[in-house]
Amino acid sequence: MLSNDSYDDSNIIMITIPFDETSSFKPGSRDGGAFIRRASWGLESYSPILNRDLTEVKFHDLGDLYLYGNQEKKFKTIERAVYNIIKDGKKVVSLGGEHSITYPIVKAVKEFYNDILVIQFDAHCDLRYEYLGNKLSHACVMRRIYEINKEIFQFGVRSGDLEEWEFAKKEKIYIKPNLMDKEDLEYIKSLDKPIYLTIDIDVLDPAFAPGTGTPEPCGFSSRELFNSLYLLKEVSDKIVGFDVVEVSPINDVNDITSITAAKIVRELLLMLG
Amino acid sequence: MLSNDSYDDSNIIMITIPFDETSSFKPGSRDGGAFIRRASWGLESYSPILNRDLTEVKFHDLGDLYLYGNQEKKFKTIERAVYNIIKDGKKVVSLGGEHSITYPIVKAVKEFYNDILVIQFDAHCDLRYEYLGNKLSHACVMRRIYEINKEIFQFGVRSGDLEEWEFAKKEKIYIKPNLMDKEDLEYIKSLDKPIYLTIDIDVLDPAFAPGTGTPEPCGFSSRELFNSLYLLKEVSDKIVGFDVVEVSPINDVNDITSITAAKIVRELLLMLG
Amino acid sequence: MLSNDSYDDSNIIMITIPFDETSSFKPGSRDGGAFIRRASWGLESYSPILNRDLTEVKFHDLGDLYLYGNQEKKFKTIERAVYNIIKDGKKVVSLGGEHSITYPIVKAVKEFYNDILVIQFDAHCDLRYEYLGNKLSHACVMRRIYEINKEIFQFGVRSGDLEEWEFAKKEKIYIKPNLMDKEDLEYIKSLDKPIYLTIDIDVLDPAFAPGTGTPEPCGFSSRELFNSLYLLKEVSDKIVGFDVVEVSPINDVNDITSITAAKIVRELLLMLG
Amino acid sequence: MLSNDSYDDSNIIMITIPFDETSSFKPGSRDGGAFIRRASWGLESYSPILNRDLTEVKFHDLGDLYLYGNQEKKFKTIERAVYNIIKDGKKVVSLGGEHSITYPIVKAVKEFYNDILVIQFDAHCDLRYEYLGNKLSHACVMRRIYEINKEIFQFGVRSGDLEEWEFAKKEKIYIKPNLMDKEDLEYIKSLDKPIYLTIDIDVLDPAFAPGTGTPEPCGFSSRELFNSLYLLKEVSDKIVGFDVVEVSPINDVNDITSITAAKIVRELLLMLG
Amino acid sequence: MLSNDSYDDSNIIMITIPFDETSSFKPGSRDGGAFIRRASWGLESYSPILNRDLTEVKFHDLGDLYLYGNQEKKFKTIERAVYNIIKDGKKVVSLGGEHSITYPIVKAVKEFYNDILVIQFDAHCDLRYEYLGNKLSHACVMRRIYEINKEIFQFGVRSGDLEEWEFAKKEKIYIKPNLMDKEDLEYIKSLDKPIYLTIDIDVLDPAFAPGTGTPEPCGFSSRELFNSLYLLKEVSDKIVGFDVVEVSPINDVNDITSITAAKIVRELLLMLG
Amino acid sequence: MLSNDSYDDSNIIMITIPFDETSSFKPGSRDGGAFIRRASWGLESYSPILNRDLTEVKFHDLGDLYLYGNQEKKFKTIERAVYNIIKDGKKVVSLGGEHSITYPIVKAVKEFYNDILVIQFDAHCDLRYEYLGNKLSHACVMRRIYEINKEIFQFGVRSGDLEEWEFAKKEKIYIKPNLMDKEDLEYIKSLDKPIYLTIDIDVLDPAFAPGTGTPEPCGFSSRELFNSLYLLKEVSDKIVGFDVVEVSPINDVNDITSITAAKIVRELLLMLG
Repeated sequence: MLSNDSYDDSNIIMITIPFDETSSFKPGSRDGGAFIRRASWGLESYSPILNRDLTEVKFHDLGDLYLYGNQEKKFKTIERAVYNIIKDGKKVVSLGGEHSITYPIVKAVKEFYNDILVIQFDAHCDLRYEYLGNKLSHACVMRRIYEINKEIFQFGVRSGDLEEWEFAKKEKIYIKPNLMDKEDLEYIKSLDKPIYLTIDIDVLDPAFAPGTGTPEPCGFSSRELFNSLYLLKEVSDKIVGFDVVEVSPINDVNDITSITAAKIVRELLLMLG
Repeated sequence: MLSNDSYDDSNIIMITIPFDETSSFKPGSRDGGAFIRRASWGLESYSPILNRDLTEVKFHDLGDLYLYGNQEKKFKTIERAVYNIIKDGKKVVSLGGEHSITYPIVKAVKEFYNDILVIQFDAHCDLRYEYLGNKLSHACVMRRIYEINKEIFQFGVRSGDLEEWEFAKKEKIYIKPNLMDKEDLEYIKSLDKPIYLTIDIDVLDPAFAPGTGTPEPCGFSSRELFNSLYLLKEVSDKIVGFDVVEVSPINDVNDITSITAAKIVRELLLMLG
Repeated sequence: MLSNDSYDDSNIIMITIPFDETSSFKPGSRDGGAFIRRASWGLESYSPILNRDLTEVKFHDLGDLYLYGNQEKKFKTIERAVYNIIKDGKKVVSLGGEHSITYPIVKAVKEFYNDILVIQFDAHCDLRYEYLGNKLSHACVMRRIYEINKEIFQFGVRSGDLEEWEFAKKEKIYIKPNLMDKEDLEYIKSLDKPIYLTIDIDVLDPAFAPGTGTPEPCGFSSRELFNSLYLLKEVSDKIVGFDVVEVSPINDVNDITSITAAKIVRELLLMLG
Repeated sequence: MLSNDSYDDSNIIMITIPFDETSSFKPGSRDGGAFIRRASWGLESYSPILNRDLTEVKFHDLGDLYLYGNQEKKFKTIERAVYNIIKDGKKVVSLGGEHSITYPIVKAVKEFYNDILVIQFDAHCDLRYEYLGNKLSHACVMRRIYEINKEIFQFGVRSGDLEEWEFAKKEKIYIKPNLMDKEDLEYIKSLDKPIYLTIDIDVLDPAFAPGTGTPEPCGFSSRELFNSLYLLKEVSDKIVGFDVVEVSPINDVNDITSITAAKIVRELLLMLG
Repeated sequence: MLSNDSYDDSNIIMITIPFDETSSFKPGSRDGGAFIRRASWGLESYSPILNRDLTEVKFHDLGDLYLYGNQEKKFKTIERAVYNIIKDGKKVVSLGGEHSITYPIVKAVKEFYNDILVIQFDAHCDLRYEYLGNKLSHACVMRRIYEINKEIFQFGVRSGDLEEWEFAKKEKIYIKPNLMDKEDLEYIKSLDKPIYLTIDIDVLDPAFAPGTGTPEPCGFSSRELFNSLYLLKEVSDKIVGFDVVEVSPINDVNDITSITAAKIVRELLLMLG
Repeated sequence: MLSNDSYDDSNIIMITIPFDETSSFKPGSRDGGAFIRRASWGLESYSPILNRDLTEVKFHDLGDLYLYGNQEKKFKTIERAVYNIIKDGKKVVSLGGEHSITYPIVKAVKEFYNDILVIQFDAHCDLRYEYLGNKLSHACVMRRIYEINKEIFQFGVRSGDLEEWEFAKKEKIYIKPNLMDKEDLEYIKSLDKPIYLTIDIDVLDPAFAPGTGTPEPCGFSSRELFNSLYLLKEVSDKIVGFDVVEVSPINDVNDITSITAAKIVRELLLMLG
């Protein structure tokens, strides 16, 4: 995924966001973006399944976002960066970093697309009101997003505290232990709205993605996840951006989590570009 | 799995057993119990599948058993510890340590429940008469148990020496390369006996549980194992105790084996408690 | 897999080939053969699925091939070693090392069996004309082989550059993203030719075989691979040799890739011997 | 270092502080305290050099501090915890966690001892005014402390930015690339003030303490550090508390950094108790 | 250290002893011998300091001792193996395994040499009467040896329990926190007795030998240890055998502990052969 | 060591050379340059010992050299790259990669400076005529260089085969087991020639630089090496280039070898720039 196009020529812009300071279990996702980038250099640019090559896609890699100050200030920086990219008429790809960064990203997206669908692949529902006294914790990210955008689809969720499940039930949030299937897709298509996609790598089973901050057993295989993501091809023009978060290289084995994340990004770029 | 209840108030008691001295391939399971305990602190107390929270279960964690002397003396200590717990009318959860510890546990169980079913999930049948000159080796544990309790069910077994398979065949031991299914359960229910459950973590494929002493390929995924274990909900009142053994943290990746073992324990506690 | 038979008494001969110098991503497969050997000592000699014990198979382990000089010289050494084994009327088992070594092996095989089938299990099609200026690179091995033997079957392939896929299409190479199934086997049987089998361990998903040089997500589980390999039992008398390549111990976890490779070798020995 | 004495009976109290959220290079010191505690259980209680046994020391281990809210709130919790211990007339031992925690500790100490010496062993001077927009960063901790207590002694310092060295020069801070020697000790004795001691494990060379967040080459051996610390025996009655910080277990090798930190704590306990 | 000489032609015989079952902290030394052997193959056969090449030394490597039964039975096997080698007029080199194995070795040596010096390099004095109920534990090995041979020299010792130091004091055992120096050597020479040498790799600082079962800080560098060992050149004809124990490969970094142990063995072979 | 100056404005140019294909023991140094670069970003730009900041030095980082074809072709590429830099009147800094790359570098240097001193810091003398049939192996690099430039100074050498030592003796090569001291420096100064400096990271003891291909015990500490290198300040205007080779990240611990190499580069840049 060497980015050979200039910012101006590109319609997809990639940034990496080295932020993991609310991680509660195992830190390290700050290096996720850098390792995904590095792993992507070893990947072929051609996808036999999509029968398409990255040379056909115009995208530009802006590199690591420089973050400064306390969490609120850093989140402002993220929000502004994403805002500027979308303002320039481009789609935005963000590589975390921990999941909390999706909140400022979605806030920026909402400046341009009022009513969107947020599709989440994740082992955890991340719907806590507050976690360890912090409302901007990774464990609260979907709760914060829900407060500004009700249309949320959660796939692959297999863990959460009682409070979260009761909230999801009360609010009738679309939460599903399985991955997105064709029926889900039909429903999504029927809504006909702009889509923002957020993928927490821990939706995969720890066997397939050991390098992550809160590994949760009983997850999905890479093939299952990719097959679900390929369904999005039909709505790829609706997707205004996506992120891949919670890759933690220091906990990884032979970079397989970074490589898998890089392949997810490649396939999505080929679908969106 | 913070244990907030006193011993007296609890009807389930947990101990960890730091014993791995007969391990023949890769030692390290002595630390299994301590790491499962530590991993359990990071798990949510709520299970969305069982829709139950650990706060509803009364259990107490007695911590590490202090072992002293040669293997026979240590096994006496294990047997006595388990004996005392059952004598107090409680169920007993033991975290290994290597698999050989199940023998003194079952001996203690047999003091109270004469005729029991031993249900085993394991990659290996552990039916050798003797191993490296030791009859109390982990490789012989089910042979020793069989000598004192004929009703044995072995699930997930995919490895063993010729001698063991011939013995199993001759003795008509219920040995199955697959996991327990609904048909197995019906048969188990029909027997209507007290059940002791022993889970060797290597029943999982090494991809899902790399941190173990004798990894054996072609095993099961976490989801397959959990789905099989959930079947036991129907006989949970019959289960008088269980153990999870052969977790070897030093060989693990990002603690995923310990985390998986901790989730097994949580789900079983929620079913038994 | 202790080899207790002499060279003369054996009809299967094993060598290990410590060569990884064209590895482009992660080196380390030079130690693959030594680690597979070591892992094999911990495996039982009996296979419950094949119901056969290694004591029934006459094979001899020649140990590490001593390689000397530049790549061409080293490949000559490999070719000559395999040539001599086949000349003595024996089947040859080679443990890599990287995949490029299959080329000199097949060249030697072709000296005796003019018209053969090469069956490959691999994540990559390895059909480049040249890679980093080297025509003998691991990434070109099947292209080189194709030049001397047209009958190639590729199973499990999920990655490759555009050039390779176009070449495969043009040349109508039998390339399949899935593993060999019964239908494939029937076709193979109908051809009634000598078979050479080459297994790149990365056909397995990185979850099941993390210790390899170019891990490629969306692969197969150990069970899926073994089930496909067991199909070959029906044509085992046609198989004149096989190799297992690209095991890279330094990138492995608890030796599970080496152990899996050793189990593949054991099962194939039991089928061929 | 099993603590067998009650809080009331003890004159030394230990806490562990799982905080590493401003770590700028490699996170992980949040687990430092827990691993030092665990490593201490494997250490002998007797010191041949001090010829004293821990059984002669009355100390109590309060365990992990529970931290909640943003950094300021967490620092308030640390400050209050230390305040309460000193108020009860006890000495306080804190195990980090990153170095920034020394600031709230010293603030609490200052409530009781107006004019103290802060003796620091560290590879870095930690004198930045601000780091990545955060004045409470680990890289600023001695700057903050200097603002409330001028008497600072820095030993082993071999790294820092130009700004820090110019500040130290201007303010005439006692900063020394070598460890404390007898001459330093004489000067310290002559001041006759209460002493607070803070040890950043990275004062050791990374060879001796690889498990740390910002390893800095050209440091000291364990023997050199212990010999310097033993000098403090003569002023041990002046020491009102100490901390050991920046142990990062995930980056460690065979726990040697945790074990070394545990031995430092043992020797200091034997000197202070 | 490829052994190219036959048993009969050799005057030095090497065995490896895969025993670690009393290890109390971190197991793994069972693989020490095999890894030292493997590491030795990568070492040059020439020593610039001794100006001698291994080709000038006649030694034979017998490989791994096959151990069977309980600890006493295994120790009998070790004792008998060493006995047979010495009976054949050869010197014996044993690679552990844990330190307890030195007891049966010394027992065998004593059958031929009644009154010997045992020179020990070790971080621990290993003088406990009993440890965890086992008198044959690694922690008791020098106590057992002392019971059958009073002349013991302990170098590099920096750890032990109060009981051990009091015993050493009472019995006037020659115990020294530093390594052997020239003065020590003169005294040793003056005694003019056969010497048995036992080297626990943990005499080195954990920085230099991280791969060991009980790492103890404040140890020695490789250069310091080798310089001390080179002194033995003057009494090399008195040395009847030596062992190197407690190398634990699973805890090692890039095999540096195994490589260091292999270099120790090479230098001693060059001095003895 | 962020390079903020343009190529044209700089008088020092840095390249990284990802080549390790002749590595005979442990491969991996191909990634050395990339990891040193990455580690350098975490280092302060100021050196308290040299009292100088990298902002005062004009240098430019050209990144990874793209290597293609067989070894000879790749060496041509290296030679040409270095040639072009020197032709532009700049000093060249090369980060390996394995040690063999120093040969084409020195060949390029010799095009401009006829009569130079090559100063080498290394554990091995690398003076073999041929190694495994390859005259361009890392084990032969100084032999090849000696053939084109007689003035060689070898410091820190403690390993080599008999053949090499005899060659060095015969040719009167300045080979020294210790590091460069003041006396050596005086002699070097007296020669008054251009200097090329090559640093094999394994001159450090494996404790200080575990991440390398052929770790050799009994080496030097980081402080010892830096103190020796600082001596070169007096001849820094004579130094026309230097390299740091044999850093192998996959064998490293917490990046300490890469960090140490980065600090060496920083200090040398500050001395040369």
